[in-house]
Amino acid sequence: MNLELLTIGTELLLGFTVDTNGAELARAAAAVGVRVVRRESVGDDAEAIRSAVGEALARTGAVLTTGGLGPTRDDLTKQVVAGLFEKPLRFDEQVWADVVERFARLGRAPAASNRTQAEVPDGAIVLRNRWGTAPGLWIEGPRGLVIMLPGIPAEMRNLMAHEVAPRLAARGNGGVIRSRTVRTTGVAESSLAERLGEIEREVAPLTLAYLPGFDGVDLRLSAWELPAAQADERLRAGVALLRARAGEAVYGEDDEDLAAVVLERARAGGLTLGTAESCTGGLLGGRLTEIPGSSDVFMGGVVSYSNELKTKLLGVDPGLIAVDGAVSESVARAMALGAVRVLGVSLAASVTGIAGPGGGTPAKPVGTVWIGVAEGESVEARRLQIPGDRHNVRVRAAQAALAMLDRRLRVR
Amino acid sequence: MNLELLTIGTELLLGFTVDTNGAELARAAAAVGVRVVRRESVGDDAEAIRSAVGEALARTGAVLTTGGLGPTRDDLTKQVVAGLFEKPLRFDEQVWADVVERFARLGRAPAASNRTQAEVPDGAIVLRNRWGTAPGLWIEGPRGLVIMLPGIPAEMRNLMAHEVAPRLAARGNGGVIRSRTVRTTGVAESSLAERLGEIEREVAPLTLAYLPGFDGVDLRLSAWELPAAQADERLRAGVALLRARAGEAVYGEDDEDLAAVVLERARAGGLTLGTAESCTGGLLGGRLTEIPGSSDVFMGGVVSYSNELKTKLLGVDPGLIAVDGAVSESVARAMALGAVRVLGVSLAASVTGIAGPGGGTPAKPVGTVWIGVAEGESVEARRLQIPGDRHNVRVRAAQAALAMLDRRLRVR
Repeated sequence: MNLELLTIGTELLLGFTVDTNGAELARAAAAVGVRVVRRESVGDDAEAIRSAVGEALARTGAVLTTGGLGPTRDDLTKQVVAGLFEKPLRFDEQVWADVVERFARLGRAPAASNRTQAEVPDGAIVLRNRWGTAPGLWIEGPRGLVIMLPGIPAEMRNLMAHEVAPRLAARGNGGVIRSRTVRTTGVAESSLAERLGEIEREVAPLTLAYLPGFDGVDLRLSAWELPAAQADERLRAGVALLRARAGEAVYGEDDEDLAAVVLERARAGGLTLGTAESCTGGLLGGRLTEIPGSSDVFMGGVVSYSNELKTKLLGVDPGLIAVDGAVSESVARAMALGAVRVLGVSLAASVTGIAGPGGGTPAKPVGTVWIGVAEGESVEARRLQIPGDRHNVRVRAAQAALAMLDRRLRVR
Repeated sequence: MNLELLTIGTELLLGFTVDTNGAELARAAAAVGVRVVRRESVGDDAEAIRSAVGEALARTGAVLTTGGLGPTRDDLTKQVVAGLFEKPLRFDEQVWADVVERFARLGRAPAASNRTQAEVPDGAIVLRNRWGTAPGLWIEGPRGLVIMLPGIPAEMRNLMAHEVAPRLAARGNGGVIRSRTVRTTGVAESSLAERLGEIEREVAPLTLAYLPGFDGVDLRLSAWELPAAQADERLRAGVALLRARAGEAVYGEDDEDLAAVVLERARAGGLTLGTAESCTGGLLGGRLTEIPGSSDVFMGGVVSYSNELKTKLLGVDPGLIAVDGAVSESVARAMALGAVRVLGVSLAASVTGIAGPGGGTPAKPVGTVWIGVAEGESVEARRLQIPGDRHNVRVRAAQAALAMLDRRLRVR
């Protein structure tokens, strides 16, 4: 089936809020084989909501809204949709009991305005909200189907997963829209495309998208409205083909994070990890510790932002810094070796670079980054030239350090 | 004037790409007094684009599109809009010369498919693209105004700023839509609302929005289509009122980052900063070093994720860890004092906490975080209980450490 998504909120029109709800709902709909054909956003304005819902029904026959179900005067969705379906609002005792109980658990009593949250259009199915006060609503009539969800992300997400998706799946044609992603790093999009060759033809009817980002280039294969078993089989074969062609640039699939891959490889080898960071200032440690359970592998690190601390904490020879500069192969190697020794870890990665906007020279322009990886007394280093602004240089440098750790762990 | 925004791309309907272009364009339009009344997204499909543009013109009379201007078969926007205006495409020699020159600068020749980028609807104004190959287009007729921009963010942003915004401003009514934000941290939204009282009435016709996020609660005041001088004057008075009521919770305005505020206060006082991080694993150092020029104030830090490194690198008494646990007031204080000593800095902040999902106990549940700030021999510590998942706990803990540094620097 086809569906439109309508997110309601004046902030969306001002551009201060990015519509992440719409993106989440689109993914959840695709997962049960529902094709989102249009997304819209309007402000908290009765006439705008009425015209957007009415047009979506006329065009597509089904629309899912988020927002405008709260207790304040700004919250208009329910009233407008009830009007479109020519249904009165009725007071639902069960919803009210849920609201009262929820407040009681927090040791409070609901305000008078909360009573409006128990009003539902006559004939609507109430989608019980166990994560907040405003229930979802599912109303169907001669004009089509309207599904209303609250705009608070956690409530929207849970109601979609537990109440809406199963109902949508039940009326699908059995086909699914499914995607799988192969994640690569360290190879530019154009070089990757050369490696992959005429792959679009080979994987059809799957489609392939190149999605470059901070972490590298993700390759997304999508199956569109195929029977589930066929979609899975084609995606499995397509992923295998992509992995074979993209080679060592591949580090994972789907939501897999390179930091998690590195931690898992180290864990399997019984190794501990540490970091010595200059231009990334802690981002590399931040990436590793974002992964739950990292503490059995990652021991810690040193952020040696100043040259003095490179010497004092990591034992880098000040003569190296004076002769080669802080951003150099010799200092990257000395930082990594120092980290192994000082932190008492099996492997350490170091990062030193010029993140910008200042500090660049003709020989070492902004974006010059040296990464070192040491294991015991053995150490290697690699120079990168990262384009883009300070944020880009720093985030990509942390990812490149993880990639270098990954490669070291793979060949052990 | 009123305007609709239409972003074009199948990825938007799959939900894998979040529509940040739409949010940016909305802000840029508001800045020149243009009210965005609706946002839409459709896929790379001629019929969907035709109906979306046609409906927007019928409803609002003006629509700005992004996407679908590239050289591939997927890129349909220009053809569809030319059809709606009943204009043929003509080959524009100037655009072609720009494309050829751009490729020449990169040492390459354009492909045959790039010639389509020089085709423009007859009668359209070409918005010269100095940041990429696809020009923007501005076409006006009896049905209204269509502005077409490429979907690549940097090209879209620059064409909007340099070519579109000035033209839109020229046809405005002289009113502007302008916002200012007061940024607060450390006080919950409901407590903040109590402090602010009946402020919505007092600041009218400005509107006030509460925007909770990782960094705290932002308070956004907006002026809608007021003469520029009046908007600025009312916003100035409104911001002063918000600052007075919200008190010490306020740390900055608009895009100001608390890390930048802390660095600036330290710089002004001739002080240096350092960090000692456990559960944040480097995020606090990452926040401080994200700010250009941080190196004259921030010397570095220690990520003491393991208990052994808390002792070895920061000199924390292992007896304290054994008796009070690693997440405790005494360890937070010892970490901060150790950082001041080891890093040789004027002030240091420490963070130790239970980020989850594992590791919580009844006495110290997930989200328990101790933050310490030391200056010389003087040290203070504070306990927080942060709700939410691992990511939330870590990001908010780093922000809370910055807030504690900020308060310490303010009262010196």
